[in-house]
Amino acid sequence: MHPTAPNGATAHDHFEDDLNLSILGFGVDYPPYRHGPEALETLANRIETRASVGYVDHPLVNQPEPPTIKQLDDNFREEGVRLSVNACKKAIDEWGGNPNEITHIVSTTCTNSANPGFDHFVRKELGIRSGVERVLLHGIGCSGGLAAIRTASNLALGSSYRKKPARVLVVACEISTLLVRSELESVDRDQAVRIGVCLFSDCASACVLSNNVGNDTGSNPVFDILGWKHEILQDTEKDLGFDVDPMGWKVILTTQVPALASAAVSPAFEELTASIPSLCGPDRPRKPADFDWALHPGGSTIITGVQQAVGLTEANLRASYEIYMNYGNSSSATIMAVMNKLRSSEGKEDVVACAFGPGISLEMMALRRRKPATNGHVELNGHSKTKGSSLMNGSTDTNGIPEAFGLPAEEVD
Amino acid sequence: MHPTAPNGATAHDHFEDDLNLSILGFGVDYPPYRHGPEALETLANRIETRASVGYVDHPLVNQPEPPTIKQLDDNFREEGVRLSVNACKKAIDEWGGNPNEITHIVSTTCTNSANPGFDHFVRKELGIRSGVERVLLHGIGCSGGLAAIRTASNLALGSSYRKKPARVLVVACEISTLLVRSELESVDRDQAVRIGVCLFSDCASACVLSNNVGNDTGSNPVFDILGWKHEILQDTEKDLGFDVDPMGWKVILTTQVPALASAAVSPAFEELTASIPSLCGPDRPRKPADFDWALHPGGSTIITGVQQAVGLTEANLRASYEIYMNYGNSSSATIMAVMNKLRSSEGKEDVVACAFGPGISLEMMALRRRKPATNGHVELNGHSKTKGSSLMNGSTDTNGIPEAFGLPAEEVD
Repeated sequence: MHPTAPNGATAHDHFEDDLNLSILGFGVDYPPYRHGPEALETLANRIETRASVGYVDHPLVNQPEPPTIKQLDDNFREEGVRLSVNACKKAIDEWGGNPNEITHIVSTTCTNSANPGFDHFVRKELGIRSGVERVLLHGIGCSGGLAAIRTASNLALGSSYRKKPARVLVVACEISTLLVRSELESVDRDQAVRIGVCLFSDCASACVLSNNVGNDTGSNPVFDILGWKHEILQDTEKDLGFDVDPMGWKVILTTQVPALASAAVSPAFEELTASIPSLCGPDRPRKPADFDWALHPGGSTIITGVQQAVGLTEANLRASYEIYMNYGNSSSATIMAVMNKLRSSEGKEDVVACAFGPGISLEMMALRRRKPATNGHVELNGHSKTKGSSLMNGSTDTNGIPEAFGLPAEEVD
Repeated sequence: MHPTAPNGATAHDHFEDDLNLSILGFGVDYPPYRHGPEALETLANRIETRASVGYVDHPLVNQPEPPTIKQLDDNFREEGVRLSVNACKKAIDEWGGNPNEITHIVSTTCTNSANPGFDHFVRKELGIRSGVERVLLHGIGCSGGLAAIRTASNLALGSSYRKKPARVLVVACEISTLLVRSELESVDRDQAVRIGVCLFSDCASACVLSNNVGNDTGSNPVFDILGWKHEILQDTEKDLGFDVDPMGWKVILTTQVPALASAAVSPAFEELTASIPSLCGPDRPRKPADFDWALHPGGSTIITGVQQAVGLTEANLRASYEIYMNYGNSSSATIMAVMNKLRSSEGKEDVVACAFGPGISLEMMALRRRKPATNGHVELNGHSKTKGSSLMNGSTDTNGIPEAFGLPAEEVD
């Protein structure tokens, strides 16, 4: 492609037949509380006294004033770091390696702005060596999880060039629910209702990514990474944002987002698959429905919008629906939860992961499951394959909450 | 080295003889105002009415209340983006390439927390293609500039593995001076004086980094990158930090920092040079004073402390002293200003860049000037070499302010 192609593609965006990059383990950690729509009713009833939605009894949402960004930071350093450490332990456990073999940590959050970043405290809790190369991504909101995997992939290829092993720990963590108290203040003061408060949830997720240089005894790759694409939709900054505020961050999400996002997916899919030899050869004609999709569940109309615009089935998107229904949108941390969910059920051999963030940015990645395919479907071993991520593999998650499957009920987005 | 070496080094930390990474251009942009110590007196006299230090007449420091993190964000989006675009234009101009050949943008700031990040707006202003891969680093404070060059180097090597050109635009930008109004509020309310307010200044700096794959007509490398080291000093989180607050960020800087930092430099230098073949061969015995040093001028006692602890001369550190004297500590943006300053005067062939940030993190990088060496010194062409960075090359900078050279006067740190 030409450097000045309208979609912004260059020769740099074409991938080799085998990047030799794999994801060796996943870990997802959701906090124990789950609130249904009735929590919003509770919230509405309480607005003239004190609000409580995130954790109903959480002190931070039961004080007279909304928590400040400093109080949220103090809380993140405890709860965010704890969730992150749990998720990382699951991912490292599934990988099966020694934490001291971790060469890089790539992290992201949009609900914390501390120096040192939360990744420092996560590293320390995990006992990973102090010289590990750390990268904490910011400014990318919900697309952060996939941007972190992309960045980790690029860094790992840097180690490949040096013929050195790379074992990159990727971590995304968001504590979004406590922002509801600040949103209520805006509702009360500005008489403006923003949708963000209805969508967000808390989560940390992690994976270990390898360049497959050196030995990895006991590791059993989950996905190979085939290629990726990052794009900014033109002149859409005002449609999707996460603006910093004394009381945390405020979601900007216009009603245009589902349409803008849905329209961008097909061209990006075409470009991405065209840049990956094993996906565009004559023997492998590919349409979107030939893939399973790990779509970031930004909201239900984004999922249904992409489903219609791209020509997918509910089955292609089952993991996105399930995570959204059961856990909500945890911003950057969601995509790895969806990817982790997807690999635990039967499905297509190849997977497209896709997320949107402020900008509007689009992140897309093509992955291949490592289990042998039969008739275009993948046979997975369920629990035995995924010792580190029991959250997503049974009818009951680690918090003892039964999972449900189905399409979301009517929801504004 | 063994994975469990106390200093955290592993085989991954050893470098090849030629990474083939170069810096092709620099750009530094300081805002037009420069305030001496008398500004603090002004500040002290005004504390019971309104404070004004950064820009004496800047509206944000002349309102009854300190600016909020949201107001600082609005200001950063204007002034920070403008400074950054200026710095990037200088770096791209010196490199001489087409902005559309930029493959990655690696940015950092610790004085902004917007989504999308400021790098999005800088990219847009520069007219760089929307598909360029962006990485915005956070949580690393003053070490951000060097961490960004390290990350850019790793990413560029990823492109080397794929045999594709990488031209990475590295940008660091900080608007720190407006935080003084919030610091004054703390002084007034808590009767606590923190040193940060005396040290900080505003700046954007940039460079273009290349993996030297593909053609670069007209480019004339400034530095080759030989290797790097990242380290966290054990249990020092409480000594150096930059805590988020409704009124921006608050500097944590204990009196231990100069001693902690100075003590860490020699071991890191030994390890780094031992990991780089061309610096540890039998024909090249190396001691710290054989290098010029681009030390981040965190404060004058950090510079003098490192000078004494490591056995350097004022001449080795001249660029750090000059930037500190004339422009102050601009956090992450400072190190590239020092590197840019250093290359414009005669000096050693090899350079160590070193910065400290919250954690306490230590970033160190070894570079080699590309001009031919004579008797261990480098002959530089001055202005003709550095068309894009006139700021640092004459007796008068772009703002028409004469530069001075000398050791700083007595200063608390």
